[in-house]
Amino acid sequence: MLEQTIPKISGFRFSAIGCGIKDPKSDRLDLALISADRPAVTAGLTTTNIVFAAPVAIARRCLEKGVCQALILNSGNANAVTGEEGLNNALDLIGETGKALAIDPDLIIPMSTGVIGQPMPVERIRARIPQLVEGLEPDKCMLVARAVMTTDTKPKTVLLEDKVDGLPLRMLGIAKGSGMIAPNMATLLAVVLVDMFVELPFLSECLREAADASFHCITIDGDTSTNDTVIAMAAGRQDAPVLPGSEPSKRAFAQALSRICLDLARQIVSDGEGVTKVVEVRVAGTSDKKGARKIARTIAESPLVKTAFYGEDPNWGRIIAAAGRAGVKFNLERADLFIGDVQVLRDGAPVSSDWEHRAHEDMKKREFSVVLDLKSGTEEATMLTTDLSEGYVRINAAYRT
Amino acid sequence: MLEQTIPKISGFRFSAIGCGIKDPKSDRLDLALISADRPAVTAGLTTTNIVFAAPVAIARRCLEKGVCQALILNSGNANAVTGEEGLNNALDLIGETGKALAIDPDLIIPMSTGVIGQPMPVERIRARIPQLVEGLEPDKCMLVARAVMTTDTKPKTVLLEDKVDGLPLRMLGIAKGSGMIAPNMATLLAVVLVDMFVELPFLSECLREAADASFHCITIDGDTSTNDTVIAMAAGRQDAPVLPGSEPSKRAFAQALSRICLDLARQIVSDGEGVTKVVEVRVAGTSDKKGARKIARTIAESPLVKTAFYGEDPNWGRIIAAAGRAGVKFNLERADLFIGDVQVLRDGAPVSSDWEHRAHEDMKKREFSVVLDLKSGTEEATMLTTDLSEGYVRINAAYRT
Repeated sequence: MLEQTIPKISGFRFSAIGCGIKDPKSDRLDLALISADRPAVTAGLTTTNIVFAAPVAIARRCLEKGVCQALILNSGNANAVTGEEGLNNALDLIGETGKALAIDPDLIIPMSTGVIGQPMPVERIRARIPQLVEGLEPDKCMLVARAVMTTDTKPKTVLLEDKVDGLPLRMLGIAKGSGMIAPNMATLLAVVLVDMFVELPFLSECLREAADASFHCITIDGDTSTNDTVIAMAAGRQDAPVLPGSEPSKRAFAQALSRICLDLARQIVSDGEGVTKVVEVRVAGTSDKKGARKIARTIAESPLVKTAFYGEDPNWGRIIAAAGRAGVKFNLERADLFIGDVQVLRDGAPVSSDWEHRAHEDMKKREFSVVLDLKSGTEEATMLTTDLSEGYVRINAAYRT
Repeated sequence: MLEQTIPKISGFRFSAIGCGIKDPKSDRLDLALISADRPAVTAGLTTTNIVFAAPVAIARRCLEKGVCQALILNSGNANAVTGEEGLNNALDLIGETGKALAIDPDLIIPMSTGVIGQPMPVERIRARIPQLVEGLEPDKCMLVARAVMTTDTKPKTVLLEDKVDGLPLRMLGIAKGSGMIAPNMATLLAVVLVDMFVELPFLSECLREAADASFHCITIDGDTSTNDTVIAMAAGRQDAPVLPGSEPSKRAFAQALSRICLDLARQIVSDGEGVTKVVEVRVAGTSDKKGARKIARTIAESPLVKTAFYGEDPNWGRIIAAAGRAGVKFNLERADLFIGDVQVLRDGAPVSSDWEHRAHEDMKKREFSVVLDLKSGTEEATMLTTDLSEGYVRINAAYRT
């Protein structure tokens, strides 16, 4: 991954302003625009929550066609459970944006995050859209990342450069974290911009796979919010190849997209509310991947496991008990368990050596892993999770999301 | 329900001592015995966790026969994930208890709660069993309730008197609460003693139904610990009727058992770790009960909903979003939502009146309800849950369960 002060990508411009959606009395950034120079092939994933926000309804319509030229994003208001009026407000905003950009509003996807059930301050936003459009610049990606933050403490961007068929490939990712991702309905907004020509079926397939190994491994799939949306837009540079091409170029592209999604997912987890630990939970040695995933997820979401992480307590009993209630059969007598680098269970029985002190030491780090090897197959799954801290409770008891 | 200083029930005696299982340096009560004067018809439910403790394995064997005469209970050590040695330790203890009681050890069910994965201090316990047996008295039920406490702050007992066929029926319930019941692997131990003759199939059926509407509605069914056990023992008095008799007497018995289980379940929730709110989540108006239950459970287990309860924040967006990700289809446009006595959503849209202040006032109470009426059927389900407080995190980060 490249780290640079000003991430840019050819074919896209950015703008962000504060227009009082988060707080009428503040000018904090809360409205952003990403505009492609021409219509871009666009794939996306949206929440599976049956209660979905108005912008999600519009995004789905646009994703069906697979083409889009601009994204208008806001924080401070989710525009969810706002009924007919909410849908009209969202349509109104993309209409206004289309007018200012001189493009068809049907080519614009809205993405919102924030409080549920409150009407959008649509008049206030409309009035500022011309200014938002005027502000479009190639180097304002960081402002967009800031404008979509809610309880995020850091803006999340990532720039990746690779080669495909000997030609440079560039991808730029922007994400909005969320409350605590595991175990709940945190809103995830993520955008990946690509400077290549990519055919829609291939882009969709790559995005699905990339999300499956990244955003879905931070336990968002079942627990989606009303607004979760991941968008990939491909707007080719003049010299860019068209994908899918050769097998190696397909692989290179797919891997790049996976890496960028994984990086964004890690940034999101690491910046979760009240997080003091980032823990990789890996379940290996199962006969099917689904089972491994179910067990990993149950461990990763268990409040008792997560509070033990917070307390730096190598309480493996909670981990095993969570595994046991995941609804997946396994043979405890084959289970090996590791906390950090320290083995605590061998063949389902506690190791007798001085594991406790050493595992506790490993848990003092901000990042460590938990590995449960069931030694009954070759499949495995990994989930990235966090601890559950008093800070999490404090933030969520006080903050209206 | 009867409140009295010394709950007693004919046909049963109780004893409890402290023998250093919780802490070798302390004499806190941690070992208890309940003994019936003669073998009792016994029904029970045990954890569905595939990782189950040694005492659970022995309990299941005994429950298959449906007869039992004594229960030996301990706190401080779950005797779970202790392998072959753990099973031998548990067998050793019932063997010793059988000898001291002069009964067949196969008539004794062990019940354990506490830390997972540590060997039972079996020598220390064995040495004290004769003293435990000598201490048996009809009026020591409260000591038993104290001896099974872990992070419980209060012993949990309930005595119920009713009439069946004109004759008095008495039931005595004892339970060991747990960490926070929803949403996790808290250990539940519950015992209901009955002074009637009850045939096994009828007792089993009544217990299953009673647990379904009580212990399982505090979200224990899927999330059982390695040790959860509920036992009902029926040891008839001389003048007691034999059940099942007439329809009215069957109904009276079933209702009494349900009431006693519900009372114990409420005591457990109310005494959950760090609990400041007890909330009844009722989902009504669905076409099937399973769906209602799934939605109620998802709301009741959502950390974001639970932290909002803690913050006394009538954040209905979190409630609706949790309902929407329960995996059950419903029509949001028909949904009515009430927090306390205050309607906050009507037909899926926020009510426009001054609901926020009033709902916040209702949430200041220690107990309140949340009702989601989907107006699409006649089925409903209720879950009892709590808030998620900083106190919960503090207790579980520090306490080794």
